[in-house]
Amino acid sequence: MTLAYEDLSEGRVFNLGPAHVSADEIIAFAKQFDPQPMHLDEEAGRASLLGGLSASGWHTCAIFMRMMYEAFISDSTAQGSPGIDELNWRRPVFPGDILSGTSTVISKRVLKSRPGIGIARFRHEVVNGQGETVLEGENPVLFGLRNPGDSA
Amino acid sequence: MTLAYEDLSEGRVFNLGPAHVSADEIIAFAKQFDPQPMHLDEEAGRASLLGGLSASGWHTCAIFMRMMYEAFISDSTAQGSPGIDELNWRRPVFPGDILSGTSTVISKRVLKSRPGIGIARFRHEVVNGQGETVLEGENPVLFGLRNPGDSA
Repeated sequence: MTLAYEDLSEGRVFNLGPAHVSADEIIAFAKQFDPQPMHLDEEAGRASLLGGLSASGWHTCAIFMRMMYEAFISDSTAQGSPGIDELNWRRPVFPGDILSGTSTVISKRVLKSRPGIGIARFRHEVVNGQGETVLEGENPVLFGLRNPGDSA
Repeated sequence: MTLAYEDLSEGRVFNLGPAHVSADEIIAFAKQFDPQPMHLDEEAGRASLLGGLSASGWHTCAIFMRMMYEAFISDSTAQGSPGIDELNWRRPVFPGDILSGTSTVISKRVLKSRPGIGIARFRHEVVNGQGETVLEGENPVLFGLRNPGDSA
């Protein structure tokens, strides 16, 4: 059954991933959107604070989005998001990393201005294969109600 | 001269863009990272809250990153960012939009833990061709000092 606002109980956890990250993908994304040397070249990465060729933080965000899509957005009433409240790139993402994580519902409410739409706030955490957090943050996502009449 | 921490005076403004956004780019990004219907198809976009085929918010972020790269990151001592304090997708980005904007230095300090590195906090705003804000937010970026000895 399509996931709707009513299904997003506080505390519900969605498991993300796994997503494998390759050097080719890191370099392709960087060439298009973020061609800083540490995202293009192993040598430059080693000379940087990141310690090696590593993904643009925005690439990590895009991979995280794909993991959310696969985990719970794809068959849902999701209607996009107004933004990000907070997001931290805790550690670099390196070629060969296998990312996984969780998105947890931390609060929810129906919009006063649009009674057919609710907003669920999520806490997200993405970890690498060593269990180290690489990305964490919070953001709200809009979802349609299954039964708008029951919005109380 | 390469832009370094010392050059980032509070209030300094960097002009971003222009960046042209095409339907093909929107769809290609969405297929890879965020294949929600409103990012893939005009019809589905019109049926959504966004009102038409529109870019994934993460795609807008990636385009914004590229605009920052061209404006002031490319020839700089930038060393990446620890994260995003706040980011809002204010309006959808549609095919044909021409994005521009500003990144303004709002504060800066040298890291106590690494005297050769400073952190500059930016206020960012991205607008469309009609001057409407599509993305705005704040985040810190790390920059190497030109003269680490003068960090006082």
